[in-house]
Amino acid sequence: MPGSVFLKRDPITLRTLEREDVPFLVENSNDPEMRPFTGHRLPDTTERIEATFFDEEGDGVSLLACVDGDPVGLVGLSPRSPTSRTVFGLTGVMEMGLWITPDAQGNGFGRKSAEALITYAFDDLRLHKISARVFDFNELSRALFEESLGFQHEGVQRDEIYLDGSYHDIHYYGLLDAEWSVDG
Amino acid sequence: MPGSVFLKRDPITLRTLEREDVPFLVENSNDPEMRPFTGHRLPDTTERIEATFFDEEGDGVSLLACVDGDPVGLVGLSPRSPTSRTVFGLTGVMEMGLWITPDAQGNGFGRKSAEALITYAFDDLRLHKISARVFDFNELSRALFEESLGFQHEGVQRDEIYLDGSYHDIHYYGLLDAEWSVDG
Amino acid sequence: MPGSVFLKRDPITLRTLEREDVPFLVENSNDPEMRPFTGHRLPDTTERIEATFFDEEGDGVSLLACVDGDPVGLVGLSPRSPTSRTVFGLTGVMEMGLWITPDAQGNGFGRKSAEALITYAFDDLRLHKISARVFDFNELSRALFEESLGFQHEGVQRDEIYLDGSYHDIHYYGLLDAEWSVDG
Amino acid sequence: MPGSVFLKRDPITLRTLEREDVPFLVENSNDPEMRPFTGHRLPDTTERIEATFFDEEGDGVSLLACVDGDPVGLVGLSPRSPTSRTVFGLTGVMEMGLWITPDAQGNGFGRKSAEALITYAFDDLRLHKISARVFDFNELSRALFEESLGFQHEGVQRDEIYLDGSYHDIHYYGLLDAEWSVDG
Amino acid sequence: MPGSVFLKRDPITLRTLEREDVPFLVENSNDPEMRPFTGHRLPDTTERIEATFFDEEGDGVSLLACVDGDPVGLVGLSPRSPTSRTVFGLTGVMEMGLWITPDAQGNGFGRKSAEALITYAFDDLRLHKISARVFDFNELSRALFEESLGFQHEGVQRDEIYLDGSYHDIHYYGLLDAEWSVDG
Amino acid sequence: MPGSVFLKRDPITLRTLEREDVPFLVENSNDPEMRPFTGHRLPDTTERIEATFFDEEGDGVSLLACVDGDPVGLVGLSPRSPTSRTVFGLTGVMEMGLWITPDAQGNGFGRKSAEALITYAFDDLRLHKISARVFDFNELSRALFEESLGFQHEGVQRDEIYLDGSYHDIHYYGLLDAEWSVDG
Repeated sequence: MPGSVFLKRDPITLRTLEREDVPFLVENSNDPEMRPFTGHRLPDTTERIEATFFDEEGDGVSLLACVDGDPVGLVGLSPRSPTSRTVFGLTGVMEMGLWITPDAQGNGFGRKSAEALITYAFDDLRLHKISARVFDFNELSRALFEESLGFQHEGVQRDEIYLDGSYHDIHYYGLLDAEWSVDG
Repeated sequence: MPGSVFLKRDPITLRTLEREDVPFLVENSNDPEMRPFTGHRLPDTTERIEATFFDEEGDGVSLLACVDGDPVGLVGLSPRSPTSRTVFGLTGVMEMGLWITPDAQGNGFGRKSAEALITYAFDDLRLHKISARVFDFNELSRALFEESLGFQHEGVQRDEIYLDGSYHDIHYYGLLDAEWSVDG
Repeated sequence: MPGSVFLKRDPITLRTLEREDVPFLVENSNDPEMRPFTGHRLPDTTERIEATFFDEEGDGVSLLACVDGDPVGLVGLSPRSPTSRTVFGLTGVMEMGLWITPDAQGNGFGRKSAEALITYAFDDLRLHKISARVFDFNELSRALFEESLGFQHEGVQRDEIYLDGSYHDIHYYGLLDAEWSVDG
Repeated sequence: MPGSVFLKRDPITLRTLEREDVPFLVENSNDPEMRPFTGHRLPDTTERIEATFFDEEGDGVSLLACVDGDPVGLVGLSPRSPTSRTVFGLTGVMEMGLWITPDAQGNGFGRKSAEALITYAFDDLRLHKISARVFDFNELSRALFEESLGFQHEGVQRDEIYLDGSYHDIHYYGLLDAEWSVDG
Repeated sequence: MPGSVFLKRDPITLRTLEREDVPFLVENSNDPEMRPFTGHRLPDTTERIEATFFDEEGDGVSLLACVDGDPVGLVGLSPRSPTSRTVFGLTGVMEMGLWITPDAQGNGFGRKSAEALITYAFDDLRLHKISARVFDFNELSRALFEESLGFQHEGVQRDEIYLDGSYHDIHYYGLLDAEWSVDG
Repeated sequence: MPGSVFLKRDPITLRTLEREDVPFLVENSNDPEMRPFTGHRLPDTTERIEATFFDEEGDGVSLLACVDGDPVGLVGLSPRSPTSRTVFGLTGVMEMGLWITPDAQGNGFGRKSAEALITYAFDDLRLHKISARVFDFNELSRALFEESLGFQHEGVQRDEIYLDGSYHDIHYYGLLDAEWSVDG
């Protein structure tokens, strides 16, 4: 049974992460099909995943995307810098992450989840900007950020990641508070 | 129930290690038949094995080789040096380890597991070289590395290990990124 | 007395950081003239600076730029991600940082220091890419990276930092191993 | 003032390392001329060197090579494995390391230091074998081990180290107790 | 359920100690009948026994002697000196300890357990000598070491122990690697 | 300046060890001539010696033997077992150690020091027995214990120590309270 509803955008509910959700996260984090998209490179045990989300969570936000009470993905916001003492920590910019399981894709769940999270981020967290990074081969996510959500394409970090035997670029996107509007 | 699938090469799945797998590791690490091949010399308690794989995991990779959901062995990659501050730490070389339980041997499981791990190591971890050490009496492993997997025989470390009442040589193998090709 | 020489590029020596250098770092990190360029936003005590460079050093490299035995600035390389378990940790990309004190600027010390560090990073640390971020108002650094050192301009992160009463862009640069050549 | 005499082989004395010797170690560990030979890749502060030799000394042996009371180099023996619980820990094999400062080379100091240390290792530590690794470009050390000291060349670990912009081989040597004889 | 099998000599299996075995150890360590033979003089709590075998295990070897899966005693090897930095640490000599519960005595279990442990110690741990101490009144153990196992009687340490109202001698035995042969 | 006088036997004073005496101990512990007699096998730094005598002293007694205020050797008593919880800890037996520097030998200083320490041990520490171990080649010490001090020769521990290229026996001596008489 997933956690409590924190945000809603029909048919999506974004719910608090609970220990019971860990198997869902472990399976998808390690899944060879999902890994290029979730950005995991090393095997993650249940204990490791639990530590990441429960013991070391830091200043970020993680929510489980659910439909009809079943998890379909994960969304979150994380600070741009590992330590809050640098110039990047206090500046009102967070980076957004998002994944939907393969068999739940194609239903607009990613878009709905993102819309709910972005609205929350600007309205409740006083953010000025949300950024996102997407690997070059992830065309679905690139289309989601650029076309569906209206993020600006701010640059291409060449050869930022080594995966599947070669270097890949990372596309960098940004959305300012003033640029955001959504109708539901 | 074993952990999540991380790599696949039919009929092998390489899965994340979980606490539930510890009895399998403890039994095989201590088994008098297996010890000469796994390289254990002293009795290892459950607690000791758990500490090795869960509390002190360091920078290595350990995966459980499974067939039809049942464990048949262990594969892994470990850094060549205990500390990353030495000249050996940043150089893109890791050492591969592998064992298959006696009653699962002879089915090509070791070869399949190794192929999946090697491809992952070169394609996702940006390694330049994978090395392996095999005791002289372990003819199956020597054949696996030299003939099946195409490792180069780089040297014989004379009398590197004392076992079963006398000294034995250790054969040292290496496989460079450019030397690796596998077809499935 | 500064630490031991680690890299040389006449008239610059890049030396190991020692506890004796902390007052120099503390002064410049807090200096109102320097802060917009070093990227510090909050007051840093001596203890905090010591912790950063000596107790929490992590996987980065920090070197004191000196001329005739006197410190004139700081250069360094840091991993793109706080933890090596993510997709960014094993990919051969590090971010370069550099500052020169105001009264030592204009002598090419920054360029010389950068050249020594970059050559070291590609030749000894097996890096594939060095990245750098520069605030939009820091024209000297932008010229240094783009014109003197040959970094590619990979993007403009709009409104990434709030400073001096308004948002500023951050310019993102990258230099691949194959793009680097220096003659002394 | 160097530490106490532990071993002698005229004109060399091998002395215990003391805190007063740390500046000598720090300077040579970081020296750009020496680093390819000492095997250091990252800057080492005084504190780091002190921790290595005094706080984390483990089971190894480190001695300062001196002539007329002045340090000219460092020799040592270290276990082949970071932990004594593995098959490599109890086997009577240690790895020898040795460096002489550039301006003291060419006087046979390395050979004399090695002879004293090897005799001690076999006669007092009950070792069965001493191994050594030498980078391919270090012809002086290769000649020392192969010709002067009588080590057997046991193999070439191809591309084991990345340095100065390319991969280099490491030559692996071994000397068994029964192979050692020295006359003074 | 006892731990994993580490050594076998029919009908004995020597198994790794697990936390589940602690009650068996606690009971026998404190038993008034057993204490003169196990060498305990002070009451030992469960916590104290656990600390001895699990938290402070040091460099020794402890194995549970079992018959048909049930524990009948304990065998072990311990270094002669608490610290490896003394002259006794590197010399290839360990001391053997052994006890069998009263109701399991008289079946040759002690002899079988000792034979398995001694063969392991000489063949896998590269020991040169195994020593043993036995109180003068423990005639069964004295017969076991001298007659059954072939240890040499090396001396009598007069009045080394005060027990049951008077001083007792301790007999000191030794077995060299070259003196050991067993047929099964 | 040596520490306070604790025991006297003309012309010897046995004085408390002070930090100022550490250089004397370090020099003699490491001295290649002395090491076979003091029983040290590995280099001992000043810090290590300080830790042994000041930070980890345990339950033993260590006194500096002095003549005319100058140190000529060291005497001590140590418990037979590393832990006081075993049968050997509470039994009134301690082991005596003693060394005199080479240039002070031949004056009866060892005998006088031993006599003062033994009398103290029986009279003030309620010991029942003092034991001593001497390497076979140390004829001076064997004569001292057997002939001058009246210890009983209780056994020969064959091949207990590896030194100078071969195994040596250790002679074991004991002196009971009732056997001790000295006239000054």
